[in-house]
Amino acid sequence: MKKENYVPTMKDVAKEAGVALGTVSKVVNGLPVGEPYRIRVEEAIKKLNYQVNSYAQGLKASKTYTAALLIPNTQDPFFSSITYHINTALLKRNYRMLLCCTDYDSNLEQEYVIMAQQNKVDGIIGLTYNPGLKIEEQTPFVSIDRSMGAKIPCVASDNFAGGQLAAEKLADLGCKHAAFLRIGSSLSNEPNKRKSGFENGCLARGLSYEMKILNDGDSFEEFEHFLNEHIEDGKLSFDGIFCVTDSVAYSVLKILGKLGQRVPEDVQVIGYDGTRILGDKEYVCSTIVQPVPDIAEMCVELLLQENMMQKPPLVCLPVTYVPGGTTLEPSQEQE
Amino acid sequence: MKKENYVPTMKDVAKEAGVALGTVSKVVNGLPVGEPYRIRVEEAIKKLNYQVNSYAQGLKASKTYTAALLIPNTQDPFFSSITYHINTALLKRNYRMLLCCTDYDSNLEQEYVIMAQQNKVDGIIGLTYNPGLKIEEQTPFVSIDRSMGAKIPCVASDNFAGGQLAAEKLADLGCKHAAFLRIGSSLSNEPNKRKSGFENGCLARGLSYEMKILNDGDSFEEFEHFLNEHIEDGKLSFDGIFCVTDSVAYSVLKILGKLGQRVPEDVQVIGYDGTRILGDKEYVCSTIVQPVPDIAEMCVELLLQENMMQKPPLVCLPVTYVPGGTTLEPSQEQE
Repeated sequence: MKKENYVPTMKDVAKEAGVALGTVSKVVNGLPVGEPYRIRVEEAIKKLNYQVNSYAQGLKASKTYTAALLIPNTQDPFFSSITYHINTALLKRNYRMLLCCTDYDSNLEQEYVIMAQQNKVDGIIGLTYNPGLKIEEQTPFVSIDRSMGAKIPCVASDNFAGGQLAAEKLADLGCKHAAFLRIGSSLSNEPNKRKSGFENGCLARGLSYEMKILNDGDSFEEFEHFLNEHIEDGKLSFDGIFCVTDSVAYSVLKILGKLGQRVPEDVQVIGYDGTRILGDKEYVCSTIVQPVPDIAEMCVELLLQENMMQKPPLVCLPVTYVPGGTTLEPSQEQE
Repeated sequence: MKKENYVPTMKDVAKEAGVALGTVSKVVNGLPVGEPYRIRVEEAIKKLNYQVNSYAQGLKASKTYTAALLIPNTQDPFFSSITYHINTALLKRNYRMLLCCTDYDSNLEQEYVIMAQQNKVDGIIGLTYNPGLKIEEQTPFVSIDRSMGAKIPCVASDNFAGGQLAAEKLADLGCKHAAFLRIGSSLSNEPNKRKSGFENGCLARGLSYEMKILNDGDSFEEFEHFLNEHIEDGKLSFDGIFCVTDSVAYSVLKILGKLGQRVPEDVQVIGYDGTRILGDKEYVCSTIVQPVPDIAEMCVELLLQENMMQKPPLVCLPVTYVPGGTTLEPSQEQE
């Protein structure tokens, strides 16, 4: 039996395989060697349970087998889901993941970008709201939900199609006059396309609509004022509402209750994200579901793809609609 | 101005500071040098914006300034909250964090423990349900919620006190006959103390109680059967229920609704964890709140503490009770 603290070295692997040390090094670093040698080395690595020292390897081959994820936090359900799926996509490829919850701290984000530029990590996947982030062209960086320039791939759900789908669904479900409610960063980013898609869908289906757009930091009370202004004789003039996120929808559902409006009988509500209560229970509302596992896979695929030139600048992945009790679905009066 | 791709080396720092290369190395690795030398080196590091290469440093000083977190996933609200707070506690100390969502994969967990034993990370904080995990005595490992042996510190909320507090609250709120509902791992772990604490609290306050204990994998329908069996003439014999987690409470609230029982009028419900809907909105139910930021700080403090002998084997941090609409609080009929 092996001793308790025995840690095999590259030399032990070379001895076991009966090959030169340089051959082991080549195999470990993914450089070409004759097939029979590669097999012998890999068998020796397995037999000895040799663990590649990635730090030493990092210095030699500029590969750390580590990627970093920049995300504002892991408490928002969409962020926690994307973190989980990116983590599992990386682990599946024997990559490790540094997690950095940025809390929107741009210095922290820049620090991690510098780490990538100095080859301390192989690349970065980032969901950032920092327009000043400096990323050199050759730095492996994949952005989620926000375009950072033509040379940096951005992966998002198909926000335009999602907005359009929401409008089409409301029209199909019998709505005549809809509202779009949005709160969020005023920066140009992918989720802003939900609005354009929604407008497009409304126009295509002849669904009239109004919009209420708030900026980050504005109070939700403004939604309440807006909705209240559209109530006459106890009746809301909107019979369908598309909210920019499920989180907004959740708050809007509370406001509607307060204003005496029944959902979905008086007004139907569709959100965006596909958030489930407590992570795995029912949907918060009828919603446009982001394909989070697909977004995660795509981010990791693009990050690890070596040829920068072949990386597409923007990848939009298809969304789906699921009823979640806040719409009047055809087969039922109410979920 | 500096060139676009200029990355200063340790040599540049030595030249700038007018000291020997070895002096820079000592400062970078935290070894003693004369105070005036240390100041000159630190000023040069700042001026050149020299980034310590921690991988090279890792090989020299056995310090990587990286810790790993093993957690089943980041989608469960408690896990996502602990991940966020441990991440921020590490970043605050200029540590990086490798995240490993284990999905209960014990091989993956063991791999990360081996990484710590080989000094590829400085230590591990783990929330694991793997009783077979092999951790050498000197490996810096801090466990959350489960005792892994006397030599490995475990940090948890004060589960016993929390169970007791739940019983006391139910008694204070007028309950006469309570139930404790539990589902979870049958392994000996800290959360199991919620049951003992609850029993203790019931006995102390003369509150009669019954228990229904399910194992992982059992169906929630068994709770429904159990509760249904305790309904006579439409009236549930329990007027207070303590659920082992907020997630269980959430499902039990649905079952109670289905069985025609009003909460909190007919039966009051208290959960455990302090989970908020969508991460930052209202509490799921009246609940015993785990001090997650304190648990995270304590885990990181213990992990980075060098003297293994001084690490306490079990740290239980105080919990609090918050009303969350599923109890009849004194100042109100109903929240």
